[in-house]
Amino acid sequence: MTNSTTAPTTVEASIAAPIDSPIDALADVLPLTARSNAAGVLQIGGCNVRDLAGAFGTPLYIYDEHTIRQTCRDYLRDFQAHVPGARAHYASKAWLSPALVRILVEEGFGLDVVSAGELHVALAGGMDPEHIGFHGNGKTRDELQYALDSGVGRIIVDNDDELALLDELTQEGAKEQRIMLRITPGVDAQTHAKTTTGLRDSKFGFPLPSGQAEAALVRALEAPFLDVTGFHIHLGSPLFNIEPYSDGIATIGAFAADMKERHGYEWREFSPGGGMALTYTANQVAPQADRYAVQIADAIHTACDTHGLPIPDVHIEPGRSVVGRAGVALYSVVSRKHIPDTRDYVTVDGGMADNIRPAMYESRYEAAAAEQMNTVPSLVATIAGKFCESGDVLVRDANLPTLQLGELIAIPASGAYQIAMESNYNLALRPAIVMVNDGDARLIRRRQTLDDLLDLEL
Amino acid sequence: MTNSTTAPTTVEASIAAPIDSPIDALADVLPLTARSNAAGVLQIGGCNVRDLAGAFGTPLYIYDEHTIRQTCRDYLRDFQAHVPGARAHYASKAWLSPALVRILVEEGFGLDVVSAGELHVALAGGMDPEHIGFHGNGKTRDELQYALDSGVGRIIVDNDDELALLDELTQEGAKEQRIMLRITPGVDAQTHAKTTTGLRDSKFGFPLPSGQAEAALVRALEAPFLDVTGFHIHLGSPLFNIEPYSDGIATIGAFAADMKERHGYEWREFSPGGGMALTYTANQVAPQADRYAVQIADAIHTACDTHGLPIPDVHIEPGRSVVGRAGVALYSVVSRKHIPDTRDYVTVDGGMADNIRPAMYESRYEAAAAEQMNTVPSLVATIAGKFCESGDVLVRDANLPTLQLGELIAIPASGAYQIAMESNYNLALRPAIVMVNDGDARLIRRRQTLDDLLDLEL
Repeated sequence: MTNSTTAPTTVEASIAAPIDSPIDALADVLPLTARSNAAGVLQIGGCNVRDLAGAFGTPLYIYDEHTIRQTCRDYLRDFQAHVPGARAHYASKAWLSPALVRILVEEGFGLDVVSAGELHVALAGGMDPEHIGFHGNGKTRDELQYALDSGVGRIIVDNDDELALLDELTQEGAKEQRIMLRITPGVDAQTHAKTTTGLRDSKFGFPLPSGQAEAALVRALEAPFLDVTGFHIHLGSPLFNIEPYSDGIATIGAFAADMKERHGYEWREFSPGGGMALTYTANQVAPQADRYAVQIADAIHTACDTHGLPIPDVHIEPGRSVVGRAGVALYSVVSRKHIPDTRDYVTVDGGMADNIRPAMYESRYEAAAAEQMNTVPSLVATIAGKFCESGDVLVRDANLPTLQLGELIAIPASGAYQIAMESNYNLALRPAIVMVNDGDARLIRRRQTLDDLLDLEL
Repeated sequence: MTNSTTAPTTVEASIAAPIDSPIDALADVLPLTARSNAAGVLQIGGCNVRDLAGAFGTPLYIYDEHTIRQTCRDYLRDFQAHVPGARAHYASKAWLSPALVRILVEEGFGLDVVSAGELHVALAGGMDPEHIGFHGNGKTRDELQYALDSGVGRIIVDNDDELALLDELTQEGAKEQRIMLRITPGVDAQTHAKTTTGLRDSKFGFPLPSGQAEAALVRALEAPFLDVTGFHIHLGSPLFNIEPYSDGIATIGAFAADMKERHGYEWREFSPGGGMALTYTANQVAPQADRYAVQIADAIHTACDTHGLPIPDVHIEPGRSVVGRAGVALYSVVSRKHIPDTRDYVTVDGGMADNIRPAMYESRYEAAAAEQMNTVPSLVATIAGKFCESGDVLVRDANLPTLQLGELIAIPASGAYQIAMESNYNLALRPAIVMVNDGDARLIRRRQTLDDLLDLEL
């Protein structure tokens, strides 16, 4: 049994303003292995970023293998300490590549996918389909058939149309499929309106208050080849405030109790979804895994105690927080602009095509001159991308030293929802991705070429 | 000489609310060739969209060749009527493909590019480099060298660092290059903050009021291999209100007069940029080409008369308005959700990966049931995409008839900044693109395959 008083008390406090050199000021947002050498050049995973830029060019996405592995271990350790047997499924939509899947397999993670494409890459990376959950509010017939044929462990059913289709397809195939029902609990997760998902007015899940969730369960239980293992909720992302988990879990616990009483149905599995946050800036530090573990475990135990329910098997679905800190985007300065009495702009060779988040969600990031990590910043400048849109600004009012053309800029906390949402806007080439570990740098994705841009054209 | 009283007066008025059948209500947003057959199925370019969906699948992007060609002809006719010799450069960033370039060449359009990638595709499509302008606030050394080697007609220089680099590169190559200077006039274009570009606090161009534009001209005139043909401004996009063009052109005219007086420099060329709007919804109709032509021509003539300047050669840079109306996104319904007393959702098999604009800019669109174009709508529903994000809603509160699973949904005005900004988010496959004309449908881009997703992975 967990006790919330064991949670660290410092997590939500702001850290000091960055009066230190960048390597110190950004310690919470850079990868775990980030260091500065004597010349002030950033090292990640034992690799000098100047060497990486020289070898692979910029923009370059650098992933620190150690940070990914350590984060995975933290999640499993902390959740299993509070919820025995808890499993973790990485939410592929944050970033997926076969190289990442291999690491996740080795660390004992499963995977959630939301499309045929994600399922394809997960399988290509060697994930056991038993440990794959298939999500989404708009699964097509082809995608459901692909999931069934692949033997995915669970399909998380979102709506009546999908339930009917899955009933039909499993009857055709005469093969049992485990499913979970995604329930919309009607909880406000207090995150960005574009990424909150648990409200009543949501495109996701079976609404609970209207009786539609119950009706779906009844239909699913009647389907001859569907095995309903339990319920799934997802409140939104990123959740810096962890209170909503308690509300959501209390609601779903009461629902589970009702279903037991009214239909004799007892849940075997439950997932509180994902939403675990990431520290993007030094002054908004995300809760660590153990905080989420304690909060979620307490709520589950309370709900089961209250209603006399068995403790279900639990899996969590972190995505952003597993890979976000491991990733650093590395750019080169291509132009500088001083507008008197207004603003200094520093333009880099990437931008909204590789990181849409500032333009899309007003997301804030830190930035550092990657070759001057020991230099205390002396100016405030706005880091603009090279894309032909005013909204293409990566970091407003960053603290930076004086910069030369060609100098490297590092933006930490770039591992999630950047490569995943990348485009070829302005026909920019997709950046290369390198995985670093113990002084080795392994190119895991090559940079696109100009000719690649014509691949699909006929 | 033009006279603004000749402009049509009806353009900005709202049209009647859509009480008609969709084919009538959406006449201003659908392609010029859009019709409904007796069964109520939408036809574009003489092709039945049900047949297109059957042959090429959904999501499908359909471009109507006739609408593109007619729009090009309207632009050249209307601008040349008011500004003799006016040229038009299509702004590639709205959407670029070799198939489109071939049409633009045939219609006498030039092209603006903002990256090596766009230049590569423009050349692959057969555009004469003489008719290419190279733009951008963050051109890299490699990109500038590629532009010089390709013989692009003009490089539109954005900043001091670029000017110095171009001076260096042209001296190395000992070959003359025509350039224009992009000037930031300090005019509020009254469009979305993410897409307004003419303000003083802009990442684009040489600021005028600070004297930086003048200093840049002086330096450019001293560069031995740079030929400054004139000035370029761009105010933002889309500009439904055409007044800002007058302010911007008056400002640049006064600047040109100052430069003539102080440095003996006389402009030969001028571009007022792009920004021409598109009709996305029936109640916000964009000005037609002749309105922009009259407004811009009047302002240029007034500025030249006032200051005793020669009328420069003018080129405009429409992008969105050239291809926007020609494009229709075609989706299939994959699920429906009725939330009592709240909302009806219809989920389709595409969304924010192929159209980021609603999530990014709160953009509004119309939608129609493409197989019920003669049916008066009976319900209000929200069309959601299939992507795992609440912000992935394509059209809020669309007027639709009752829909069956698998039915086709058409979203008009989808030709610009959708394919151009598309991603593989959720590892969705990039849609196929078909060009229709006179009953023929030509696949110009194949749909991505699952294996294509692994192309860059190592």
